[in-house]
Amino acid sequence: MSSTPLGTHTVTQIGIIVRNLEETAQAWSRLLGVPIPKIIVTEPVELTHADYQGQPTPALAKLAFFQLGPVTLELIEPIGEPSTCQDQLGSHGQSLYHIAFEVKGMAERLAVLAEHGLPVVQHGDYRGGRYAYLDGQQKYGAIVELLEND
Amino acid sequence: MSSTPLGTHTVTQIGIIVRNLEETAQAWSRLLGVPIPKIIVTEPVELTHADYQGQPTPALAKLAFFQLGPVTLELIEPIGEPSTCQDQLGSHGQSLYHIAFEVKGMAERLAVLAEHGLPVVQHGDYRGGRYAYLDGQQKYGAIVELLEND
Repeated sequence: MSSTPLGTHTVTQIGIIVRNLEETAQAWSRLLGVPIPKIIVTEPVELTHADYQGQPTPALAKLAFFQLGPVTLELIEPIGEPSTCQDQLGSHGQSLYHIAFEVKGMAERLAVLAEHGLPVVQHGDYRGGRYAYLDGQQKYGAIVELLEND
Repeated sequence: MSSTPLGTHTVTQIGIIVRNLEETAQAWSRLLGVPIPKIIVTEPVELTHADYQGQPTPALAKLAFFQLGPVTLELIEPIGEPSTCQDQLGSHGQSLYHIAFEVKGMAERLAVLAEHGLPVVQHGDYRGGRYAYLDGQQKYGAIVELLEND
């Protein structure tokens, strides 16, 4: 594990919370001159073990990914609640939401980052990996997402 | 000029609006394990020709730039008003603010993008180039910045 708290300097993803994924994905597709990517819905909590503020949550999300050169743009439409994505939509409307970094050793990383003003708000699994949303808004001005791919 | 509206797929910068640049820059510096970058203040309107909603604006901003792998993280503390940065701080507090793309032919690009739901809110010059903030929040979920370096 790197000796720095985050363990990497490389942002790999930017997330935007949207109200209607199909509409926003179509707008970005035209803007960038690329096809609309496949739209996916996150899997149920039994598979993702999605945890919001220490409790399992049935909230899902509809997702689409565009490649913007070296980083991925993730469009996220929250489905159900509670989730940090739904919180963001409620408090700020459509908006830039997170910047993501890829890490190794999620559990150790989360412990270190909690000491640096980045507590976990939500975490869960996806096929082939896991994610965590860290609340860095007060100290860093942004939600930071960690991604660990196996 | 590329035939796509944006003319590029490559995001080059992510911006965060902060309340206290020195504090936030110090936090990011520790998180990333890098030195605090030089903090600069934008030049006066006589030099930048800063224009907000069609009128010259005396608003300035304090800036610091971190390199996050392939993209630059720009921390922005608004100084004075009116500006889109001050609007963001007032409406959303510390928050992710913009994603930026580098373009060529700013004037032509702005005309094309206005037709695609990206009207200019603020624009101005800096040494060696110019910028424009486009209000894409309704259609794209984010403020898009264009940068043109000579």
